[in-house]
Amino acid sequence: MSMTLQEKFALLGIDNAPGQESLQKSTTLELRGEKLSGAPVDFSHGDVDAHKPIPGSLGTFVEGYLEGGVQAYTPYRGRKEILEQLAADLAEFSGAPVDAETDLILTPGTQGALFLAMGANMMPGDKVAIVEPDYFANRKMVEFFGGELVPVRMDYMDLKKGSGIDLAELEEAFKDGVKLFLFSNPNNPAGCVYSYKEIEKIAMLAKKYDATLIVDELYSRQIYKGVEYTHLRALKERPDNLVTIIGPSKTESLSGFRLGAAFGTPEIIERMEKLQAIMALRCSGYNQAAFRCWFHEPEGWMEDRVRQHQEIRDGIMEVIKATPGVSARRTDGGSYLFVKMPDLEVDLHQFIRIVRELAGVILTPGTEFGPQFVHEFRINFSQDKDNAIEAMKRVFAVMDRYRTTRTKTITIKHHTRGVSQ
Amino acid sequence: MSMTLQEKFALLGIDNAPGQESLQKSTTLELRGEKLSGAPVDFSHGDVDAHKPIPGSLGTFVEGYLEGGVQAYTPYRGRKEILEQLAADLAEFSGAPVDAETDLILTPGTQGALFLAMGANMMPGDKVAIVEPDYFANRKMVEFFGGELVPVRMDYMDLKKGSGIDLAELEEAFKDGVKLFLFSNPNNPAGCVYSYKEIEKIAMLAKKYDATLIVDELYSRQIYKGVEYTHLRALKERPDNLVTIIGPSKTESLSGFRLGAAFGTPEIIERMEKLQAIMALRCSGYNQAAFRCWFHEPEGWMEDRVRQHQEIRDGIMEVIKATPGVSARRTDGGSYLFVKMPDLEVDLHQFIRIVRELAGVILTPGTEFGPQFVHEFRINFSQDKDNAIEAMKRVFAVMDRYRTTRTKTITIKHHTRGVSQ
Repeated sequence: MSMTLQEKFALLGIDNAPGQESLQKSTTLELRGEKLSGAPVDFSHGDVDAHKPIPGSLGTFVEGYLEGGVQAYTPYRGRKEILEQLAADLAEFSGAPVDAETDLILTPGTQGALFLAMGANMMPGDKVAIVEPDYFANRKMVEFFGGELVPVRMDYMDLKKGSGIDLAELEEAFKDGVKLFLFSNPNNPAGCVYSYKEIEKIAMLAKKYDATLIVDELYSRQIYKGVEYTHLRALKERPDNLVTIIGPSKTESLSGFRLGAAFGTPEIIERMEKLQAIMALRCSGYNQAAFRCWFHEPEGWMEDRVRQHQEIRDGIMEVIKATPGVSARRTDGGSYLFVKMPDLEVDLHQFIRIVRELAGVILTPGTEFGPQFVHEFRINFSQDKDNAIEAMKRVFAVMDRYRTTRTKTITIKHHTRGVSQ
Repeated sequence: MSMTLQEKFALLGIDNAPGQESLQKSTTLELRGEKLSGAPVDFSHGDVDAHKPIPGSLGTFVEGYLEGGVQAYTPYRGRKEILEQLAADLAEFSGAPVDAETDLILTPGTQGALFLAMGANMMPGDKVAIVEPDYFANRKMVEFFGGELVPVRMDYMDLKKGSGIDLAELEEAFKDGVKLFLFSNPNNPAGCVYSYKEIEKIAMLAKKYDATLIVDELYSRQIYKGVEYTHLRALKERPDNLVTIIGPSKTESLSGFRLGAAFGTPEIIERMEKLQAIMALRCSGYNQAAFRCWFHEPEGWMEDRVRQHQEIRDGIMEVIKATPGVSARRTDGGSYLFVKMPDLEVDLHQFIRIVRELAGVILTPGTEFGPQFVHEFRINFSQDKDNAIEAMKRVFAVMDRYRTTRTKTITIKHHTRGVSQ
């Protein structure tokens, strides 16, 4: 290997990763104008205080703790009874059978599931395709495991196309030797959902080129009105090697428990189990008990949650649409918006820090999702609705102060009104 | 790379790993004689029902949950306040400073800490030294990360030598290009503690050959009367790259929470943080709150726990000493005994399954700790004392039925008395 340990880890930068902002060293920022007052909003992740965990999840944890050793020490895949319940629920949800004994593993969060799936399906030197933009850890996992990244573009701003993934480019990647393709649906950060035709084509291509698919469906229970969602695993024509990933950390707000699940081809699940044995042994024993609430939420609870998020999305989209030079695709599913800004007189990372300072708002830079996204930032809008809308107004008011001369000419006053309320 | 994914994972077998026994497929066993009745004992791990978690740990978890988002979403290293408390405790315990900001990371169990430490300190092709016998995952981690295993022998049966590690062999390994050495102290499975002189020499050698050390001190709070324990990190002469690993899963019975900690060289902790970001994001947020009890147990609680375990050890050692042809080193620290048996007419893995069937006792085969240990099994004696002693009598009673003609002649009736009570 020609790369050193230090070089490899230099690729895995986390200074701008969501949730790490409080650790950023202060640098000299070119601050223009006064601070804008308002409730601080951390858009780097959802607010589990505004959108609370599934009712009863603490109770199931406590019951698990009180059960003692049998819940503390489960097999690496997870406790049998919980695997059985979840296998039935996931089969019903995704529209295809799940065998509790061979097809399912519980993991420390969906991040754990992703890491296990990648580690169990690639060797150093392998070509691995990922979408740009897509979840920031996807790229880093390929780099950590010594793979060669093959990016596939996605024209997510074209609403007519589904996700807008470039399927010709994906086929080229497979032709070029890619044997593993990972993508999130709904997409993180763009929030687009793949159309039936896109999913059908991806499955067909993977089968044709004998590639393994990892489908990250983390946000698939939060699909907005009018959007059709397709579980790839439910298609008749699908590749032999397929693993689907999901967890209750997002819509269900159980992130603090670190719960995830992966289900699919038995040989893959078995390799993931072997890797989990040396990675963290198991999804925390007591925490596994909190899985019992998942897919068994009180009647109407999930519908309410999705509806509330749709309202927040719509409120923020109004602010975006009213801001000249700013755009975002309206979210099909999940809690993300990937917002494109005009040219500014400071670079993206400076701007992100300036916004934190002047507006009390934390954004995630687009570069986390692909090196080309230097005009974009991501927000997780799973926040208090009014706070989130006011925070976005402050972001754009600050942004206005940094527009280049060219873009300044088209600036209107609209958004700077009322932001300091 | 000449190795395929399938070949690599074939090296990571877990069929005989502790805790996986319930999943073993039934095979035809040559069962001799009747089943022996008695309370079933699972020696593959500690019994947290017999030795309960630190009082108050559930309470701190619940408080953490009720704090909400601030405890659910911590930075990757862990929540600041908990890092600060733990850094102070670990500094006092280990006898050398720990900077909460740069030297410490919270992980999903000590297994998580080990995996991160290994992943952050080796590249494919690197030579890595590990002790034989030592914790079964050590070997597997080297194999997973594509390293070349360099085993170092340990003559743990020689009580005069400390652990009995072959320091000349370790130096040879360093001379041969090993840049990373991982070992557990107290040793798992042999239960021996390294002497001051051994630790001093290991530190000196690592410094001389510019090697990185990972010291797994998981059981270092459970040291028995008359045994001196040396924290390598507290020595003046120590290598520049050093990480120490510990957690509350064993003596303190918090395994169901999956809590671990690694502390040491800032550059290593930083790489571990980067890897954690893609592995599982963080040690479960709510669970981190349970760290608050650690090193703050009620007065006398830890002393009692260690004393109770010393009594169990002594009770089992009596059974071992009274059994012809069987031996084990008396445990210096931790809850393991590595028991050597005479030649039997069945192989070790068959014997382990026979014992499970005839005696209701689960043992871990020695081969998990090194391929040469075909006469050994490991027990974790953190069990109900009387049940554990009776279980060991049953194990040896079953063993007697399978002795070879040569060893049979020296068998005495002693242990078969009273086992069916």
